[in-house]
Amino acid sequence: MTNVLVVGSVALDTLETPHGRADNALGGSATHFALAASRFAPVRLVGVVGRDFPSEHLEMLKAQKIDLSGLQIADGKTFRWHGRFVGDMSRAETVSVELNVLATFQPKVPAAFVSTPYVLLGNASPDVQIAVLDQLQSPKFVMLDTMNLWIGTQRATLLKLLPRVDAVCINFEEALQLAETTSGATAVRRILDFGAKILIMKRGEHGATLATREGQFTSPSFPTDRVVDPTGAGDSFAGGMLGYLAQAGAEKNALRRAVIYGSVMGSFAVEEFGTKRIQSVTREEIDTRARSILDMLSV
Amino acid sequence: MTNVLVVGSVALDTLETPHGRADNALGGSATHFALAASRFAPVRLVGVVGRDFPSEHLEMLKAQKIDLSGLQIADGKTFRWHGRFVGDMSRAETVSVELNVLATFQPKVPAAFVSTPYVLLGNASPDVQIAVLDQLQSPKFVMLDTMNLWIGTQRATLLKLLPRVDAVCINFEEALQLAETTSGATAVRRILDFGAKILIMKRGEHGATLATREGQFTSPSFPTDRVVDPTGAGDSFAGGMLGYLAQAGAEKNALRRAVIYGSVMGSFAVEEFGTKRIQSVTREEIDTRARSILDMLSV
Repeated sequence: MTNVLVVGSVALDTLETPHGRADNALGGSATHFALAASRFAPVRLVGVVGRDFPSEHLEMLKAQKIDLSGLQIADGKTFRWHGRFVGDMSRAETVSVELNVLATFQPKVPAAFVSTPYVLLGNASPDVQIAVLDQLQSPKFVMLDTMNLWIGTQRATLLKLLPRVDAVCINFEEALQLAETTSGATAVRRILDFGAKILIMKRGEHGATLATREGQFTSPSFPTDRVVDPTGAGDSFAGGMLGYLAQAGAEKNALRRAVIYGSVMGSFAVEEFGTKRIQSVTREEIDTRARSILDMLSV
Repeated sequence: MTNVLVVGSVALDTLETPHGRADNALGGSATHFALAASRFAPVRLVGVVGRDFPSEHLEMLKAQKIDLSGLQIADGKTFRWHGRFVGDMSRAETVSVELNVLATFQPKVPAAFVSTPYVLLGNASPDVQIAVLDQLQSPKFVMLDTMNLWIGTQRATLLKLLPRVDAVCINFEEALQLAETTSGATAVRRILDFGAKILIMKRGEHGATLATREGQFTSPSFPTDRVVDPTGAGDSFAGGMLGYLAQAGAEKNALRRAVIYGSVMGSFAVEEFGTKRIQSVTREEIDTRARSILDMLSV
């Protein structure tokens, strides 16, 4: 079995949406990614939590084929995020954030993990992401996530990092910000000009575009009507993509199909608070939605 | 040759965008639609202009296989719209509007046009659209356009009209407004529940979705990076769709391919002010972009 490695945050989230509220929900980019990717391939997680992190979460993650030997348990409290989604839930409002043990975290990739073929550099400062990248040994496919904060404050470092990874996976608004434009088509062209080999641009409920110098592919989103909590949708998308790639390997159109599986995992992620839906989704349910999307693409 | 009929507005537009300004540009929903559809099939236009309407526009339209025998030339001035697009140009701001001869226009479909198989009921009050529909004799495919104004003020009449046509073609925001929701997936479900047989939901640069009770299809937009003036993009989309349908008839997946041709015509429409780009685009250029979109859908 081909492994997938994720380096990113593990969190306890307080979430408010028009559909209700969840306190101390399991969250964090690495968690959402790992649970989604684990539906396809064994996952290795590098991150940090505090002494307050509930052991039941650790047990649940281990039960889902996620190797936690790279998860540090540090003195202090777990990273906490309190977010609120209002109206059409297209944007999260941060009510409060406590970095806690994440503030001083310098990810160390265990020796047993450094040769993992598929890697997600989860959202973190580009300096931290470079430090992780430098620890890896000839990975097959490295995907980068980032966010508006780093695009705004660490642009130069981020632009140095882009050509060193295989793919960058960001949302539409982040792509516009990175490319300093108001046009998605212009953003795609500029980000490829910055040296990105593959850009995955997530358009929320409008789908996702995979762009390379050779061409583009666009997958629609699976049209779920049951959007309860958008937290983790993007991480679950990335997890579905890399998990599928690890499994499908060199199959024809594997990358395009990976975007479809990413969209599918994103559509499940939003249907319950926190990680609940992704924890319980079956491979059969996943494949059913993937077939629906394939039908939506068929001409 | 199978004909296409459009009933709608013909206008003289003043247009302001971040790329410049055009005064007295040829415009109007029927004009944009007719020019786009005429790339595929002969078009019949029903509308009204005033005595001030430049004869060179009439000559140009006739030269493009557009039958103007249903275009009234009335005493008074032509309908005028002054619009401004700012920022990402996703929304038009109306600077001024003069209905002029359009204010009292009651469309009369000439006897020679009443049996036209493919028909666009261009944007107008639902009462006017119903009056036009009642004049048609067993059309094969009638598509309805509308706008936020009528959804807001004539909702009940519009809901009565929906089940009487074959397709409704509106943009994403209009679909949300019509369905009273913030979710595109919910909007699609509700509008089909209202009795629409086919919904075409245009997502701007994110593509377009064709939805029926049997399934959905989503076409990406052609990623043009040269957006000079969005005026008429939606009408050109509708023109590409119906023109292609008239030409392709009963071919397998004709409706899905029609959405692709609609997207292509929308992508050309925005590349110059007014109707300029659509007037000059060749069938070869159109087919090249359609092939690009087909490649973007291929898995």
